[in-house]
Amino acid sequence: MKLDLSNALLNSELKEYQDKVNAIHQSLLDKSCLGNDFIGWLDWPLDYDKEEFDRIKSVAEEIRNDGDVLLVCGIGGSYLGARSAIEMLNGLYPDDKLEIIYTGNGLSATYLQQVLNHIEGKSVYLNVISKSGTTTETAVAFRIFEKYMYAHYDKEEAQRRIIATTDKARGTLKALADAKNYRTFVIPDDIGGRFSVFTAVGLLPIAASGVDISEIMKGCQKAHKDFQDSSLESNIAYQYAVARRILEQQGKCNELFVTYEPSMTMVAEWWKQLFGESEGKDGKGIFPGSVTFTTDLHSMGQFIQEGTKNLFETLLLVENPTYDIKFPSDSDNLDNMNYLADKSVNWINKMACLGTIDAHVNTGKVPNIILTLDDTSAFSYGYMIYFFFRACAMSVLLLDVNPFNQPGVEVYKKNMFNLLGKPE
Amino acid sequence: MKLDLSNALLNSELKEYQDKVNAIHQSLLDKSCLGNDFIGWLDWPLDYDKEEFDRIKSVAEEIRNDGDVLLVCGIGGSYLGARSAIEMLNGLYPDDKLEIIYTGNGLSATYLQQVLNHIEGKSVYLNVISKSGTTTETAVAFRIFEKYMYAHYDKEEAQRRIIATTDKARGTLKALADAKNYRTFVIPDDIGGRFSVFTAVGLLPIAASGVDISEIMKGCQKAHKDFQDSSLESNIAYQYAVARRILEQQGKCNELFVTYEPSMTMVAEWWKQLFGESEGKDGKGIFPGSVTFTTDLHSMGQFIQEGTKNLFETLLLVENPTYDIKFPSDSDNLDNMNYLADKSVNWINKMACLGTIDAHVNTGKVPNIILTLDDTSAFSYGYMIYFFFRACAMSVLLLDVNPFNQPGVEVYKKNMFNLLGKPE
Repeated sequence: MKLDLSNALLNSELKEYQDKVNAIHQSLLDKSCLGNDFIGWLDWPLDYDKEEFDRIKSVAEEIRNDGDVLLVCGIGGSYLGARSAIEMLNGLYPDDKLEIIYTGNGLSATYLQQVLNHIEGKSVYLNVISKSGTTTETAVAFRIFEKYMYAHYDKEEAQRRIIATTDKARGTLKALADAKNYRTFVIPDDIGGRFSVFTAVGLLPIAASGVDISEIMKGCQKAHKDFQDSSLESNIAYQYAVARRILEQQGKCNELFVTYEPSMTMVAEWWKQLFGESEGKDGKGIFPGSVTFTTDLHSMGQFIQEGTKNLFETLLLVENPTYDIKFPSDSDNLDNMNYLADKSVNWINKMACLGTIDAHVNTGKVPNIILTLDDTSAFSYGYMIYFFFRACAMSVLLLDVNPFNQPGVEVYKKNMFNLLGKPE
Repeated sequence: MKLDLSNALLNSELKEYQDKVNAIHQSLLDKSCLGNDFIGWLDWPLDYDKEEFDRIKSVAEEIRNDGDVLLVCGIGGSYLGARSAIEMLNGLYPDDKLEIIYTGNGLSATYLQQVLNHIEGKSVYLNVISKSGTTTETAVAFRIFEKYMYAHYDKEEAQRRIIATTDKARGTLKALADAKNYRTFVIPDDIGGRFSVFTAVGLLPIAASGVDISEIMKGCQKAHKDFQDSSLESNIAYQYAVARRILEQQGKCNELFVTYEPSMTMVAEWWKQLFGESEGKDGKGIFPGSVTFTTDLHSMGQFIQEGTKNLFETLLLVENPTYDIKFPSDSDNLDNMNYLADKSVNWINKMACLGTIDAHVNTGKVPNIILTLDDTSAFSYGYMIYFFFRACAMSVLLLDVNPFNQPGVEVYKKNMFNLLGKPE
C-alpha cells in the first residue's frame, strides 16, 4: 500500500506533528489513551483466538456446501466490515452458488418482506450478529427470520442453521443461543463494532463467501508490523492521520472517499462509519462523504470541480484490479472509438483517474490524498483495513476526541424506546 | 406530498423571499432565466410525445416477454433516474423474471467482465443511452456489449435486441443506430441529463421493469399543475427551495438526504446529481450527501448527532410503504421483544424516525426539513421528481447560478482525452 501526498496541497509540514504523534502512539501502546478500554483491535492481528478461527472456517465451509443463501443479520459495524470485504473481493456479480443477503440493519417492512419472498424455497443459513442482542433493528429482523427457519426446517435442522456471533458469556442473545443450542462465536469485550471486522463478526460471513480469511489475517499482521514505528517519515497510516488534520486546519470540513471500482463502494461506507463515528463528537470532526468514479464524475463531479471549496478527496486506487479487458477493435468504427482499440480497459480507467486528479487539484484546487492498493486480494484488504484503524485512532486522538465510543448514538435510541413503550 | 418545516430551525421567514421567487418563477415561465435553452423539462408533463410514449410501452413489453436481462448502458442522468424509479417502485429484491443491470457508467474492467460472465446463457436486451454517443464510459461499454450481442445472436436478432436512446437527428450514436437498423428513442434538445427521467431516457428501462409509466406521467402532471402558483403560502417546491437557501445563510454547508427505505437509496443518488450538478458552480453550493436510516444511524448517526454543526437534513418519508409485517409474538420471549408483539413493523420504523427527528433537532440542533410521500406508487414517484425539478430550479436561481449547465464536468474529460490520445 502506498500513500502519495504530492497532490494534497498541504500548507504545513507533517513533521511539525511528530512530537504529538509520538506521544499518542505511546499512549496507544501502553493503553493510556482516551477510550483505552476499547483498543483490543490494536494487537488483535497477533492475539486473535486461533481455535475459534479454525472453527469459523469449518462452519463457513458447511454453509458453502449446503446453503443457497446466508442471511447476515446485523447493523453498523456488525455488517459493514463483512459487506465491504465480500463485495471488494468477490465483486458485485460474483459467480457463486451462495448468495449473501444483509438484513437486521433497518426497519423497513418492505425490505424484510421482499427478502422473505426472495429466499422462499432456498437453503437458508442465518448468522445473527449483536453484542447484546438488544439492538432493535437486529432483534426485530432476527425474530422474523428465526420464525421463518422453524417454519421451514425441523427443530434440530433450524438449530444447526442459526449461528450467533455475540458476547462470550453475557447478554440476551448469548442466553437465547445457549438455550436454543445455536452455535456461537465471540465478539470480544474490548473491540467496538467499527473495529470488529477481523473478529468472527466479519470473518464468518467473509469466509462463507469463499474468501480465504487466513490471507486477510496475514495482511493485517503485515500492517501491524509496518505501523509499529511512529516516525512520520515512514508510517503512512500516521501520515494520512496528520494530513487530514492539516487539511481541516486549512478549512476543509468535508472529506470525500473516492474509489474507481464499484465493488469498493461498501469499503467507502465502512470507512464513513470508522471515521464519522470515531471523530464526530464534541461539535468536531471532518464530515465523511463518498463517491464512486468515474460514475459519480457525472453527478458529483461538477460540485467537486467548481462548487464550494470546503472539500478534499481521499482516493483509494487499485494498482492491479481483478480482471482486465482488451478494448476491441471494430472495422466499421461507427462510434469513432478505434483510437482505443486494443488498449486495456484498466489503462483507460487509469487515464480517467489521472485526468481527474489533474482537473480537481490543479484547476479545482481540491486537495487529493492518494492511497494505492496493490490489488483486490484478501491480503490487501486486511492490510488496508488495519491501515485505516491505525490512521483513524491517531487522527482522532490528534483532535483530543475519544475515537472508541459513540455516545451520540444513544439519543435516538432512548427517544425511540420511549415511543415504542419499551419496559425498563 | 407534504412538506413540514416545523423542525427546520429557520431564523428568517420564507415570505421575505416572495418577491424574488415571483420574479424567478416568471423568468422560468417566459423562458428568460439563466440557462433558458435547457428548460424543456418545465412543460414536458404536458408536451411529451404521445406517439413515442406508446412506442416505449410496446418495446418495453417486448423486452419483458422475451428477455432475462436488460442492460441499461448510460451514465449520470442517463441511468440515475431510471434506477431510482426501478428500485423505489420494485424494491431491491423484485419478484420479476427480467433482471436490470446498469453498465456504461464507469470504466472498471472487473465490473464489465463480471457482468459479461453473469449474463452468459441468458436472453439479453441492450439499451444504450447517450445524447451524442461520445461519452467515453458509455461508448466503451457499448462496444463491448454490442460485440457480445453479435457473438450470441444472428445479425437480425442482435439488431432487434439493441435499442438506442439518443439525439433525434445528429450525433455519433444516432448515425450508428440508423446504419445498423437499431430502434431509436429521442433525447430532446432542451432537456439536460439530470432532468430527463420523464423522457425515453428513463421511461424505457422503467417500463421494461414492469412499472406503469402512464401513472408516472399522471404524477408529474399533477405536480406541474400544483406548482403553477408561485405563492410561498402554498407552493411546497418553492418552500423547500427557499428553506435550503435560508439554512445555507445560517452556516449549514451540507445537506443530508435521508430516507427510511433501502429501496430509496438511489433516489438519494439521483437527488445528489440534481442538486450537486445544478448548483455546485462559481465556488458556491450546498454539498449534497445522503444516508439511509435506520441503517446509517449506526454509522453516520454519531456525527449528525454530535459532530460539526454544519449540516441540515432533508427527510423523504413514505406514509404508506409497499408492505407491512406484523411483528410476531413468541411464547418463550428469550429476546425480550414481546413488548412489540403484534405491532406493525412500519409503525416501529416510524417511531424510530420520530425518535431520531427529536434527537437530531432538539438535542443535536440539526435542522430537519421533512417531506412525506403518500406511498411508493408510480404516481407518487412522478410527483416527487417534478417537485424536485421545480425546487431545484428555484433554489439554484435564487443563488444566481445557472441550474442547467455543467461546465466543470468538461475539465476531467479534456485531461482524460489528452492522456488517452483521442484525435481532435
